[in-house]
Amino acid sequence: MTKKSTWKQRLHEVIYEADTKEGKLFDVVLLIAIIASILLVMLESVDSFDKKYHTFLNISEWVITILFSIEYILRIISIHKPTKYIFSFYGMIDLLSTIPKYLSFIIIGSHHLAALRALRLLRVFRILKLTRYVGASNNLLVAMKASKAKILVFLFFVTIICIILGTIMYMIEGADNGFTSIPRSVYWAIVTLTTVGFGDIAPQTPLGQFIASIIMILGYAIIAIPTGIVSSEIARNAKDENNTQACPNCLQEKHKNNAKHCYNCGSILNP
Amino acid sequence: MTKKSTWKQRLHEVIYEADTKEGKLFDVVLLIAIIASILLVMLESVDSFDKKYHTFLNISEWVITILFSIEYILRIISIHKPTKYIFSFYGMIDLLSTIPKYLSFIIIGSHHLAALRALRLLRVFRILKLTRYVGASNNLLVAMKASKAKILVFLFFVTIICIILGTIMYMIEGADNGFTSIPRSVYWAIVTLTTVGFGDIAPQTPLGQFIASIIMILGYAIIAIPTGIVSSEIARNAKDENNTQACPNCLQEKHKNNAKHCYNCGSILNP
Amino acid sequence: MTKKSTWKQRLHEVIYEADTKEGKLFDVVLLIAIIASILLVMLESVDSFDKKYHTFLNISEWVITILFSIEYILRIISIHKPTKYIFSFYGMIDLLSTIPKYLSFIIIGSHHLAALRALRLLRVFRILKLTRYVGASNNLLVAMKASKAKILVFLFFVTIICIILGTIMYMIEGADNGFTSIPRSVYWAIVTLTTVGFGDIAPQTPLGQFIASIIMILGYAIIAIPTGIVSSEIARNAKDENNTQACPNCLQEKHKNNAKHCYNCGSILNP
Amino acid sequence: MTKKSTWKQRLHEVIYEADTKEGKLFDVVLLIAIIASILLVMLESVDSFDKKYHTFLNISEWVITILFSIEYILRIISIHKPTKYIFSFYGMIDLLSTIPKYLSFIIIGSHHLAALRALRLLRVFRILKLTRYVGASNNLLVAMKASKAKILVFLFFVTIICIILGTIMYMIEGADNGFTSIPRSVYWAIVTLTTVGFGDIAPQTPLGQFIASIIMILGYAIIAIPTGIVSSEIARNAKDENNTQACPNCLQEKHKNNAKHCYNCGSILNP
Repeated sequence: MTKKSTWKQRLHEVIYEADTKEGKLFDVVLLIAIIASILLVMLESVDSFDKKYHTFLNISEWVITILFSIEYILRIISIHKPTKYIFSFYGMIDLLSTIPKYLSFIIIGSHHLAALRALRLLRVFRILKLTRYVGASNNLLVAMKASKAKILVFLFFVTIICIILGTIMYMIEGADNGFTSIPRSVYWAIVTLTTVGFGDIAPQTPLGQFIASIIMILGYAIIAIPTGIVSSEIARNAKDENNTQACPNCLQEKHKNNAKHCYNCGSILNP
Repeated sequence: MTKKSTWKQRLHEVIYEADTKEGKLFDVVLLIAIIASILLVMLESVDSFDKKYHTFLNISEWVITILFSIEYILRIISIHKPTKYIFSFYGMIDLLSTIPKYLSFIIIGSHHLAALRALRLLRVFRILKLTRYVGASNNLLVAMKASKAKILVFLFFVTIICIILGTIMYMIEGADNGFTSIPRSVYWAIVTLTTVGFGDIAPQTPLGQFIASIIMILGYAIIAIPTGIVSSEIARNAKDENNTQACPNCLQEKHKNNAKHCYNCGSILNP
Repeated sequence: MTKKSTWKQRLHEVIYEADTKEGKLFDVVLLIAIIASILLVMLESVDSFDKKYHTFLNISEWVITILFSIEYILRIISIHKPTKYIFSFYGMIDLLSTIPKYLSFIIIGSHHLAALRALRLLRVFRILKLTRYVGASNNLLVAMKASKAKILVFLFFVTIICIILGTIMYMIEGADNGFTSIPRSVYWAIVTLTTVGFGDIAPQTPLGQFIASIIMILGYAIIAIPTGIVSSEIARNAKDENNTQACPNCLQEKHKNNAKHCYNCGSILNP
Repeated sequence: MTKKSTWKQRLHEVIYEADTKEGKLFDVVLLIAIIASILLVMLESVDSFDKKYHTFLNISEWVITILFSIEYILRIISIHKPTKYIFSFYGMIDLLSTIPKYLSFIIIGSHHLAALRALRLLRVFRILKLTRYVGASNNLLVAMKASKAKILVFLFFVTIICIILGTIMYMIEGADNGFTSIPRSVYWAIVTLTTVGFGDIAPQTPLGQFIASIIMILGYAIIAIPTGIVSSEIARNAKDENNTQACPNCLQEKHKNNAKHCYNCGSILNP
């Protein structure tokens, strides 16, 4: 019993952790399998490719599905509380990314079900775990979280501007020039303000072009706002990085570089 | 009389303020009603939707109109100086957003009047009051105001560049390639410089494409200017957030917001 | 003689300076005249407008031309060294913006000569003189000059990338998909890298679309470089702004805010 | 023997270094020759130009080829270890940029081989050596290297978002609206997120346009991230430029570059 438990423990270490050599290897193999499975879904959607290599795609699909199934079973076996994993977000996705191929075996012509396989794309977020090797993303995430509120206010503001400008353009240009409804005009305003500019809808009247010009210059100018927010947040973060010292008395961190006394308890800091 | 005054006072608190529980509830309900009214105007402009659900849209429109009318009357009753509200910017918009539906009752075929309802969109700015809950926008507005002058100089500069480049392109490409007039060419120059690029007008001659390339690279480079302005303004603001207090003993400044002791001499700071 | 000299001096003050009330008025009137003249050139290029209001445009054109001629003569009279003005950049433009209309009187059908009038656009730079009222542009120009070298290196780098990527796309897509020559492909690469995206040329082959994706993501990422350059330059400038004190001994400026001694001569600064 | 060695040494100085007057001249002449050779390859690809000036292009091509051949031989002669140069990256490119023209002499109709000449474009990187004259690029490269890891994490994140959004759009819009396969939809998502917006593929269904709007606003907002990374990196670099010296008396740091006295205690700094 103790032996089996040890075996389970080792499996848990390999699958759920990445500190050991085997754990890292498992993560890399999983990463490759996920990328391969995504490429398969993508290539299958290309008609000309699917016709040529149908058998190859089908076999590869089965190999990936079986691999993922084994991984799913091992995950359930090795974890302490299987139900918690099964009903977690990743547990659901891990299951849903294996089912479609099995169903295609039972139900003939389950083509629309194949779309479910695209859910495998969400497994890619497991790869994001690997970004800890890079170590840089952590810093980025902190800056992102700190500026989230400001970015949301900005996006809310942009949305209101786009609704107002879209409505104005709908009244000026009208259905004859492609601005067939307010939602469509708002869509055009977003396309224009974000400087994407598809060109599927474009103003034809001089007044419409004049207002479009204002929207474009506005979009060109206000892109500075999110940039400024994130820039200052990252810069502030970078500054805080320098204060790695901890107070020898109260262990308070993040002291200013030229600080002589702890700002929390007043005791003298090490130089 | 005192009782009625108290009743009015409570109503004023609910409608115009947001400190009490009822006040916050009123703001949220109003927010939902405004968003619903905007969605109605948008959906009505979609022909296929209007044909299917005409009765539903008509009834909803009446419900919104009556709600807004009641709100308008309550605002007049509860305020101390009604005339000041009626002739204020928001007072006018509140009135104008209720009128069109009533007029459609009297005048048959007042379709163009319906466009007036789009004015309701401006009511959305009332929602901006709610951004105080986020608390982040204030900081942004300060940075925006501080950099307004510089941004205006920049936009003026961009406009001149677009007029000059537009005229040059008009002379190079000519009417045959879509550059039918100088204003249209200037419009194209704005589309290109702001990196929107609709593609409804595009240079055809090699020389035109060469100058277009210069415009694009120019636009790609000078977008750095507004971004730089806002970035430094926000960064300066962010710095000021931390540095308001001076040490009562050694007068050292730039303390962290959560500092209790001066980092220079160690004496206790004022809370 | 002294009287005449005084009269000339006053005229010089009005035309060339902007410190007196009359000088400011002259600048504003000139600004309006220049903008009106630009609008005239723009409107004349619109065929439908020119047909309707030909007489009005013709008369207005004459009024502007005579006004500019008077201004030109006054400038020559009032200045100390007329030849220096006449052969200066602005002197040439001031002359060239009046000549075309007079020539149209002598030579019939001098339509192509009318394009010369567009040179008036360059007079608009006189208006830039007025930006000193804003006061903010000076700061901007300093930051622009300081980062000029870096921006040029960046633009040189972008140009090389576009030439290389354009050539690769020419070899991949070929003439059948719109990439008819290397210069045209380079033009397309610039359109794509700067995120303009006209859509007049677009890759059709999968490989071409793959490389186009790389170009787009590259362009999306490297726009950060000029922005970063200008941002840090403006930020550095903004910091220097705080140091307004001059040393009481050697008059050296730009001291650090927490400086106690002049960094140039070592004498004690005022607190 | 000593004389010959000196002759070789001088040649080495001229070709491989740029400290002497002759070395600088050689670099400038080489720069002009490379740019001329690139222009030749570009112009030859323009059909109309090639037909008109075929002889001129052919002769120029021979002149450039012979010049590059002589340079290649001189490089081999003057260097200490010729094999190291021959098999280096630049050695290969120097050789490959001369060969195609000679082969066209032997093999008739080697048109496709001409594409090899485009490799000459890579020689342009030799010019980058010249940027040391500007002196600003070094600083830039340091900032680029420091932020490389963060930029890569960001690009990886953007790629995942584009794959997910592209798949969603493929399922919503379908092949009838131009989204014929997942790779093509991912390509469209990249075009949209990076705000390029060709317009060759554009969403047609209301739901598709709604999601496209979200992608565009997302792309508009997250462009702030690379910008913020590079900005703060350049700003940190810029700060370091000024702060290398410590006062020999009080050890105060962060002196201005042109400071002669310590701003804290007034004692003289080391030059």
